[in-house]
Amino acid sequence: MAPQLDGYFKQVDALSDHFIERLRKAVAIPSVSADEERRPDVVRMGEFLADELTALGAQVEKRPLGKQPGMEHLELPPVVIARYGNDKKKRTILVYGHYDVQPAGKEDGWATEPFELTIDDKGRMYGRGSTDDKGPVLGWLNAIEAHQKAGVEFPVNLLMCFEGMEEYGSEGLDDFIREEADKFFADTDAVCISDNYWLGTEKPCLTYGLRGCSYYSIEISGPGQDLHSGVFGGTAQEPMTDLVRVLGSLVDTNGKIQIPGLAELVAPLTDEEKSLYGDIAFTMDNLHESLGSQTTIHNDKENTLMARWRYPSLSIHGIEGAFSQPGAKTVIPAKVTGKFSIRTVPNMEPEDVDRLVFKYVDEQFKKLGSKNTLRCFLQHAGKWWVASPKHWNFSSAAKAVERVWGVKPDLTREGGSIPVTLTFEQATGKNVLLLPMGSSTDAAHSINEKLDKRNYIEGIKLLGAYLHYVAEEPMVEQ
Amino acid sequence: MAPQLDGYFKQVDALSDHFIERLRKAVAIPSVSADEERRPDVVRMGEFLADELTALGAQVEKRPLGKQPGMEHLELPPVVIARYGNDKKKRTILVYGHYDVQPAGKEDGWATEPFELTIDDKGRMYGRGSTDDKGPVLGWLNAIEAHQKAGVEFPVNLLMCFEGMEEYGSEGLDDFIREEADKFFADTDAVCISDNYWLGTEKPCLTYGLRGCSYYSIEISGPGQDLHSGVFGGTAQEPMTDLVRVLGSLVDTNGKIQIPGLAELVAPLTDEEKSLYGDIAFTMDNLHESLGSQTTIHNDKENTLMARWRYPSLSIHGIEGAFSQPGAKTVIPAKVTGKFSIRTVPNMEPEDVDRLVFKYVDEQFKKLGSKNTLRCFLQHAGKWWVASPKHWNFSSAAKAVERVWGVKPDLTREGGSIPVTLTFEQATGKNVLLLPMGSSTDAAHSINEKLDKRNYIEGIKLLGAYLHYVAEEPMVEQ
Repeated sequence: MAPQLDGYFKQVDALSDHFIERLRKAVAIPSVSADEERRPDVVRMGEFLADELTALGAQVEKRPLGKQPGMEHLELPPVVIARYGNDKKKRTILVYGHYDVQPAGKEDGWATEPFELTIDDKGRMYGRGSTDDKGPVLGWLNAIEAHQKAGVEFPVNLLMCFEGMEEYGSEGLDDFIREEADKFFADTDAVCISDNYWLGTEKPCLTYGLRGCSYYSIEISGPGQDLHSGVFGGTAQEPMTDLVRVLGSLVDTNGKIQIPGLAELVAPLTDEEKSLYGDIAFTMDNLHESLGSQTTIHNDKENTLMARWRYPSLSIHGIEGAFSQPGAKTVIPAKVTGKFSIRTVPNMEPEDVDRLVFKYVDEQFKKLGSKNTLRCFLQHAGKWWVASPKHWNFSSAAKAVERVWGVKPDLTREGGSIPVTLTFEQATGKNVLLLPMGSSTDAAHSINEKLDKRNYIEGIKLLGAYLHYVAEEPMVEQ
Repeated sequence: MAPQLDGYFKQVDALSDHFIERLRKAVAIPSVSADEERRPDVVRMGEFLADELTALGAQVEKRPLGKQPGMEHLELPPVVIARYGNDKKKRTILVYGHYDVQPAGKEDGWATEPFELTIDDKGRMYGRGSTDDKGPVLGWLNAIEAHQKAGVEFPVNLLMCFEGMEEYGSEGLDDFIREEADKFFADTDAVCISDNYWLGTEKPCLTYGLRGCSYYSIEISGPGQDLHSGVFGGTAQEPMTDLVRVLGSLVDTNGKIQIPGLAELVAPLTDEEKSLYGDIAFTMDNLHESLGSQTTIHNDKENTLMARWRYPSLSIHGIEGAFSQPGAKTVIPAKVTGKFSIRTVPNMEPEDVDRLVFKYVDEQFKKLGSKNTLRCFLQHAGKWWVASPKHWNFSSAAKAVERVWGVKPDLTREGGSIPVTLTFEQATGKNVLLLPMGSSTDAAHSINEKLDKRNYIEGIKLLGAYLHYVAEEPMVEQ
């Protein structure tokens, strides 16, 4: 049975100026988690959220996370957790978002003041955090308020978890989630995270997969200290010579990873899966536009989407210890560390990837016949995540999208990782849905970040509608 | 006829405390040319030299060099030029040195205060600039004073050129030398530079050759801006992948340059030259000690010395534009610039080297089949220098070494470059001799720089004796 949503939708429209005002207040708080001096603003933003939630009748707690690791003079901002509704007959949905933002300054090239919400004649609302992630976080608060003012019963119990360190590695959050899994989050039936983006600008999507990431260092050392290339060039074996040769053996220009055995770890492509990519709303022009060039590996949509979502990739990020400034310096670096990462996909177990990488790198280095010393090690690994898009959590969201936007959403995966997704899945044992509000052109993390007014307001309707469809789904665990 | 030097030598010994005091005063002036805030100290050091020279009866001029290029608020320190003696019947020797020093601070790990001359019980005189190049510069002043106090006639006219920007690229000096070649330096018969070091610690040397250096950049660009490796890994051709492959094709672990045609530019090794290397006072142990490791290319002295002095080498210095900090960053850099240099030797013309490098790099990049864009360009080139060690300038110095130290000096070349050497040779058209005072363990540019008291005092004798032998040589241009 389709839920009655007209009253709620009307109320969202009626409150739209109020909701934009709420976003304006939030954007005005420069809650930059990476900037030590902004830490009081991050805390103030958490308090703003807590106060708004309390005013809406939610039970709110600000949970301390202790000192910031490595910067013991700094207190981590609290996790703001809240419960709205406690009706055993209703489903309980846990939603996650973050109230901190990336750094931003007019001097970086912003066209407007980054911490002042500025709306242009096309309804683009510019401001740091507008789309990442203050708009979506406030979306949940706005949904509660619109229900109250429309006199519509809230369809579920809502648990909220809003952190203030997402843009700085979510310091302390994983442990917190695991600890609260059987406490504050104990009656969670499903999880919804709104912290990613549509694939394009017109068609909404639901996201059910993320690639993992295994990040490696290759350290090569020889001389006791940096050397002068005039004095020692030609007489010493140079670590940098060895390193570029080993790094050069990892992957080719067309992205083909040269490490034997790695491709065999990847789940085979079925005909059914292959058939899904053709329908996704995405074009090579979209890719060229976001790349800022035509230097793509593939020339067609299907192979591009598969390369991004369901196949591994290897990127070489840089070298530590070598000369990296502009100009010229005639140094022979004594110790250089190359950094590269592999984006992983089902069914690549991180331990297997490590084993193959270490073996291959050692073999390549041995081939050089060098007297230098090589050490290859994992810096960090985050596992890929793939959820079942057939779960009621996804089908509810799909119905809500169709109701609000008039189209079936694309079912997408992403090439990057949102580590907290896997943490929630593992800690709660429940299905996790990524339900984006903003679009691909929102420029999260860049200058001129924005959220379209349409995406914000229709997004508030979507979040509410999703909860109504969730409430309608049969109470059978899938 | 052997010159009468005993009176002069005795006087040097008698004045040794006074000469060490002079060095102490000079070291106490922190004339760091790279540090903007130390510029007044650099100027003060130039004035100290000028005052001392004036007191010794030299005609002194402090010549301004104008503003520092790129830092127009800073005046370059003056070149201190001086003439001591103007007797048409005597030879005129032009000597060069520098009165600025490398940066130094206790916090870098110095065992003593770097700007306080500290003498240990082995006669090692620690202090920034002690060996590079205040000791040698004061050597000339001390030689003048010892002649005066011993009542020995100074054997030549001495022209002096002491600059204050050597450790910062000798800004403005080349033009100055060329302009004064037919003015202040017009009657120069030969040039002597004391700004390098013995090959080891026991045997003096005369240096007659330096390698040149051609420094290149390889810039590879593709995307319009840096990319997130999660979102774009596997779909975009990455400039860094291409760059490590091209850099990896330049040279192998054993220093063999892979660029076709380059080896053919090198002057063939004659049997006569080959026979010279066996006698040089140098051991693989010396090399291992200065390297701080055993990671050498060659296992024998002869091939090591030839690799350092008479064969080209290629070093990869680093990459600009990629991630170079500690830690992990998942960026795909949009534009990366690899830096490498080739140490050049006779008869490699820089233009030929450029041509072969550009051709090879382009070929290697084409092989990759990349859509990215490569640009390879020369940053700067300095030519190699080789003088005739049979010139009277060298034979005079050799006799002086034998008289002072009791051994025939090694005739050495160096792997690095001292660009001013070639400038003096080209501007004056005269033979240039490199006559070092300090030894290989002096740690110029490093922490705990020192000059052994023995090298300083015997070095003062050597500089004076050299001038006497110069005066004895027949007046026939060779």
